[in-house]
Amino acid sequence: MALIVQKYGGTSVGDVDRIKNVARRVKETRDAGNQVIVVVSARSGVTNDLIARARALNPMPDEREMDMLLTVGEQETIALTAMALHALDVPAVSRTGAQAGILTDPEHTRARITSISGGDVKAQLDAGKVVILAGFQGQSADGQITTLGRGGSDLSAIAIAAALKADLCQICTDVDGVYTADPRLVPNATKLDEISYEEMLELASSGSKVMQNRAVEFAQKFNVIFEVRSSFNNNPGTIVKEEAASMEDVVVSGVALDKNQAKIVASDLPDRPGTAAKLFKALADANISVDMIVQNIGRDGKANMTFTVPREDIYRAEKVVTESFPDEASGKLFEANDIAKVSVVGVGMRSHSGVAAKLFDALAVASINIQLVSTSEIKISVGIDPKDAEEATRVVHTAFGLGQ
Amino acid sequence: MALIVQKYGGTSVGDVDRIKNVARRVKETRDAGNQVIVVVSARSGVTNDLIARARALNPMPDEREMDMLLTVGEQETIALTAMALHALDVPAVSRTGAQAGILTDPEHTRARITSISGGDVKAQLDAGKVVILAGFQGQSADGQITTLGRGGSDLSAIAIAAALKADLCQICTDVDGVYTADPRLVPNATKLDEISYEEMLELASSGSKVMQNRAVEFAQKFNVIFEVRSSFNNNPGTIVKEEAASMEDVVVSGVALDKNQAKIVASDLPDRPGTAAKLFKALADANISVDMIVQNIGRDGKANMTFTVPREDIYRAEKVVTESFPDEASGKLFEANDIAKVSVVGVGMRSHSGVAAKLFDALAVASINIQLVSTSEIKISVGIDPKDAEEATRVVHTAFGLGQ
Repeated sequence: MALIVQKYGGTSVGDVDRIKNVARRVKETRDAGNQVIVVVSARSGVTNDLIARARALNPMPDEREMDMLLTVGEQETIALTAMALHALDVPAVSRTGAQAGILTDPEHTRARITSISGGDVKAQLDAGKVVILAGFQGQSADGQITTLGRGGSDLSAIAIAAALKADLCQICTDVDGVYTADPRLVPNATKLDEISYEEMLELASSGSKVMQNRAVEFAQKFNVIFEVRSSFNNNPGTIVKEEAASMEDVVVSGVALDKNQAKIVASDLPDRPGTAAKLFKALADANISVDMIVQNIGRDGKANMTFTVPREDIYRAEKVVTESFPDEASGKLFEANDIAKVSVVGVGMRSHSGVAAKLFDALAVASINIQLVSTSEIKISVGIDPKDAEEATRVVHTAFGLGQ
Repeated sequence: MALIVQKYGGTSVGDVDRIKNVARRVKETRDAGNQVIVVVSARSGVTNDLIARARALNPMPDEREMDMLLTVGEQETIALTAMALHALDVPAVSRTGAQAGILTDPEHTRARITSISGGDVKAQLDAGKVVILAGFQGQSADGQITTLGRGGSDLSAIAIAAALKADLCQICTDVDGVYTADPRLVPNATKLDEISYEEMLELASSGSKVMQNRAVEFAQKFNVIFEVRSSFNNNPGTIVKEEAASMEDVVVSGVALDKNQAKIVASDLPDRPGTAAKLFKALADANISVDMIVQNIGRDGKANMTFTVPREDIYRAEKVVTESFPDEASGKLFEANDIAKVSVVGVGMRSHSGVAAKLFDALAVASINIQLVSTSEIKISVGIDPKDAEEATRVVHTAFGLGQ
């Protein structure tokens, strides 16, 4: 008998009909002779409603109370899902994060899992029950309710799969798996049968919003093989696992697009050692996530620094830059404009050359200007004008032969 | 420094503006130099929405999962109330029933409190914080979330007041206190300054829906003096406490009306010892609450039994009666019709005679026919046609000189 963890996100449990659908799928999995743990998120929309009420009462709600508030979303779903399973004569019982012994540090709204005892989950499974676990939530050592941050339900699923040594962890969502590009932009994008953790991480940080990175990192760390698949059909999804030798045959696995970036140019900075460190330390202290960085050549004793940040952080970034260099504030210190980031990702890049050249050539042929370039071992990203973003994704996808 | 427990019901925390109102009132109470525990219910409507979703998934939802589901209502409110207090610069922290150490038996949906440790509530109060406690909920010894049944938030407030030896417990609601009659029916009804636990109990069971009986019984048992008052103004409310000698000067404290009763006549029952016991044991086993009972004179070896039940239990009662007396099922075994119950309540009745005569006379003058009578030490109830219910309430209220 195999132990399968299935995670269903907010869209998959969005209303009573969808919860019934989840219950049917869980029943099928159990009827096939498996033990099943179901991890669910809040119904889509619930979390936003709760946040809206919180902000109407307090523009800066306390993080501990925010966790107390938001965890009701998942608690509602686990109870409803248990009831839906009972209606199908499937024995089932719900468990909050605390009840399943998901212990975290006390960092409210972004807690990290410190240990998982599993509570009585294993005993309930062995008694023949499906266990429905509230995603996103845990409990700190002193009994406070904590949450794991955005995408936390994926993390809950991976973590319980690791703790209970599940045979399979299925992340059921509203897409069929991980694609070579966003099928809404690139109609002939193909679903990948498998992908490495690292590629998955690079795709996510490059704008493919299938899963948040923390869950993938956790899976990589504890070697949890998981499958991204649809909640609405039975097509096989994409298996995410440790890199296999065969994966290197594929130079580029996918093309990702992130349209939510801003390019910031900090000009006329002092051209001396420590300037970059000071700038990026200040941004890090402000919890602003910097992605691409280019230092331009200094001139007249001044340096220019170009970098990208999530678009919503522009104003906070400006504050950090001007406060960090008060002496330069009179100069042309800060300039920001929207940018799109197109990335090609693939573990095969490590052993194949010419990927950058092929990427630049494809964009040149399409007359798309490159403003910024950054590279990692398995990724090359270019920053371009947002108006060119979708065309760039398509031409790059074609150039690397990723279409069907 | 006094410790005050304030309970606010669902209407009082119905939306963000009302939660802000509660926060202002709590701040005033604290600014006056008191420690404050706030007990809140789910926002009005939330519980019904949750129940509707549950029933859409499962007509007979599991009681444990129902508790898991419904407790999210109060958990939402405690977090929002804490945020509203923070916005007024009042230090505050929320606690679930489990976190406040409200231990119950494992009877889901109707759990009884077995002990209250208070968790760290006292420590938080001593640290200068307002503590916001989720009403209605507790935790069983094995860590399951339980609920206290209808009106459970009142019980939570009384119980925490008893456990922490609060100086005052205020049940803040949408009425100004306990009235001599429902002011919507009897415009000149007056607010009572004080009332005994027993009168409060009889009024509640006679249809005055100010508070559920369990909370009042608990208050009586632990001698918790509490005040029923408005959430929306600062008028003094009604103090509910142990009977005082002076209370007996008032023969009748109030008139209550329950329009939600059905009169059932079980005819042609065997006229022998044990018939009544068999009938009412079967109804009790079915958890049907029987109120007034009259046994008519037997004839031809047959007995008639007349009793009242809540109107929603008519069909279940019919099933119980016909199944209990299968041999009589061919006769005119079961007949039900709607009835209204008008009751006069007062501890002074114990030492005053003529109350029943005055009640019957007032109804006779108004040509209202009495179908059924029942009495207790401090209450006389009559069952009448529902069409006469409101007029009966008014004439009785006037007859006992309760108007302003």
